[in-house]
Amino acid sequence: MLKVASKATRQQTKLHNSRLILKNVYARGPISRADISRLTNLTATTVSNIIAEQISEGLVEEVGSVSIERGKPPTLISIIDNARLLIALDLSRDDFTGAVMNLRGEILAEQSEPIYDHSTRNCEENDPLTTVYHLIDSLLSETATNLLGIGIGAPGIIDIHSGIVRHASNLGWNDLMLCELLLERYGLPTYIVNDNQAVLLAEHIFGNYEETPDLIVIRVGRGVGAGIMFNGQLVHGHGSGSGEIGHVVVDESGELCRCGNVGCLETVISRPAIVKRAQEIARNYPESRLNEVAGSPESVNIDSVIQAINLGDPHLTPLLQDLGDHLGVAIANLIGALGTPRILLCGSVAQIGQPLLDIIEVEVQKRTLNARINKPKIDVIQSKPNVVLLGAAASLLSNELGLF
Amino acid sequence: MLKVASKATRQQTKLHNSRLILKNVYARGPISRADISRLTNLTATTVSNIIAEQISEGLVEEVGSVSIERGKPPTLISIIDNARLLIALDLSRDDFTGAVMNLRGEILAEQSEPIYDHSTRNCEENDPLTTVYHLIDSLLSETATNLLGIGIGAPGIIDIHSGIVRHASNLGWNDLMLCELLLERYGLPTYIVNDNQAVLLAEHIFGNYEETPDLIVIRVGRGVGAGIMFNGQLVHGHGSGSGEIGHVVVDESGELCRCGNVGCLETVISRPAIVKRAQEIARNYPESRLNEVAGSPESVNIDSVIQAINLGDPHLTPLLQDLGDHLGVAIANLIGALGTPRILLCGSVAQIGQPLLDIIEVEVQKRTLNARINKPKIDVIQSKPNVVLLGAAASLLSNELGLF
Repeated sequence: MLKVASKATRQQTKLHNSRLILKNVYARGPISRADISRLTNLTATTVSNIIAEQISEGLVEEVGSVSIERGKPPTLISIIDNARLLIALDLSRDDFTGAVMNLRGEILAEQSEPIYDHSTRNCEENDPLTTVYHLIDSLLSETATNLLGIGIGAPGIIDIHSGIVRHASNLGWNDLMLCELLLERYGLPTYIVNDNQAVLLAEHIFGNYEETPDLIVIRVGRGVGAGIMFNGQLVHGHGSGSGEIGHVVVDESGELCRCGNVGCLETVISRPAIVKRAQEIARNYPESRLNEVAGSPESVNIDSVIQAINLGDPHLTPLLQDLGDHLGVAIANLIGALGTPRILLCGSVAQIGQPLLDIIEVEVQKRTLNARINKPKIDVIQSKPNVVLLGAAASLLSNELGLF
Repeated sequence: MLKVASKATRQQTKLHNSRLILKNVYARGPISRADISRLTNLTATTVSNIIAEQISEGLVEEVGSVSIERGKPPTLISIIDNARLLIALDLSRDDFTGAVMNLRGEILAEQSEPIYDHSTRNCEENDPLTTVYHLIDSLLSETATNLLGIGIGAPGIIDIHSGIVRHASNLGWNDLMLCELLLERYGLPTYIVNDNQAVLLAEHIFGNYEETPDLIVIRVGRGVGAGIMFNGQLVHGHGSGSGEIGHVVVDESGELCRCGNVGCLETVISRPAIVKRAQEIARNYPESRLNEVAGSPESVNIDSVIQAINLGDPHLTPLLQDLGDHLGVAIANLIGALGTPRILLCGSVAQIGQPLLDIIEVEVQKRTLNARINKPKIDVIQSKPNVVLLGAAASLLSNELGLF
């Protein structure tokens, strides 16, 4: 439902119009002032004035003209891709990764730093926050001008509106006001999203799902979680996280989860859980293809599991069935609540691919009325390694420039 | 994320402005033209022209003026509540109910008709669609002028965008193009929402939750289902229904559900399921307070269950615990995915109230990480009997006049 419009000040209107124009130049440029006017419904004068300002700010430029039959050929306006740079951080891996990116999400510089550098004994050196500082300091030393801000993708429960990490078990962070700390230290506007939300944004904005406003990305890798978008808007979760399907209990007598709970979905289907179970299978069944592929039970990793499944190893059937059933139930719950948005599976475990999808689809059909009405479209995708960086950048570009 | 604005024609702009003004008059009237101009950021001339049109269309009227210190006192504009009437239908009960309503959702006339009239043996007479026609014919005979359209709240899986009932087991409807049929028969624009979505809209628009853009209403009565709103927008479910948590399987070896599946949540916690189990308890334990309250096991209904729970009948403890556990798991799944929106429970079973909420809260805390970060706010509400009619009206008023 539309809300009653509240009073917009002249400044707000101007900012709104300026963003609307920039967004159109970004998405459709090179584009003429006349076309911008038609697309935005703003007057020619307003468009000309704002474009003049954006040229003087070095955000856009004139890039030649098109030839038309009669009259003066209109000049085309284009965004300057490197007009502003940003720093994007991915804190969801064993190594923190940071990059300097331009307005198109192209990486100009990239650095990684391990969170726990065992070569140093200095506690402070090992602290994840210190690592974040090091990483940004180092990236800033290369790029000191035209900086728009900092975008972060981090694991755990994130309050994206206040920029607070409410809970990140891996990093030992609780109620860390990360964005405020970075704003104070660097004077740069800073935005943070959960790593799964970052993947969702990256796939929606820089990937193949721009035209998919209702989208769920489920990552099954070291952790298990989802990014959920409805009507082109990120489901933020009111500061309590969203898409935390990996930390809903599915086995009350299950194993202790790193979140402190017992029997979360993550304890059953995450990469570590799957690999652990596969190693046991390799030990119990010397004839398993796992041993052939990995060399020894201890060397079994997620790639060996995928290879052995593709080789048709019957010893892996129960593992695969359990994995598919559990994912199927989780997806059935999402579909029961949200209908049939587009669903993408990614992460190392999801790369099992079709054999996994087959089981999930049966489970989802069996468990929900909605899926029998419209067959849901579920696919496995292989995200780029820099996908969290891209999503973090998208969050910043959206908040600061209104580009998406 | 904002989408790139596409070209708006002059007509679209005018319609948009006209709706924006009407919405402000509806929500904030009596209001002066100057205040409308400030609130909408439209020019004084545009506001005056559109108000003049709306006066000539009989939608709004001048209702006197306010005294100000200096200058001409501004005239106030108000909506004419009965300017347009609408027909709202509630097809979610044993008796179909219809009402003539005004723009404020006030009922001017109301009628009910049983779906299955056993006094007639004519099959056609018993047909739900024929009953819908009868009901509308009869309401129209009282109100033939100024009709805006028809709004419907119906059970089952509804494709609200195409106006098709995809599946309504109670009514035997599958892929019934109800809105098109009614548009053809009556020449009136017709909109349909699922009954749970109608309750959500009614509580959000006409109830106490106007300022709650992220809202879930869960109904536990004859059926089990939810209406879900994110960012003030109804989660529509892409034609496959949304909020169908009652038809997600929770017990694979459970009972046959009316949807054709086995062991849906509805087969465990709906009013019929709870009453059936309570009747068994009454039979097995003659000393149960159920028998005292209801007179006999056969007379036990949901009110007797609630009374006996309030009297502290220990024989009902396992029933209450199971009900709370199952609802708790369903809510935990919603919270895991969507964070902590405001959650309202309604329907006859939910009226157990606090003893039920206590169990749900424990279960939700135990099962989700999100709920440990922010305690979710879950309440039991008692919806008005006409709540589905109100929601159906809201859907029509929103679509036709853009009032919400």
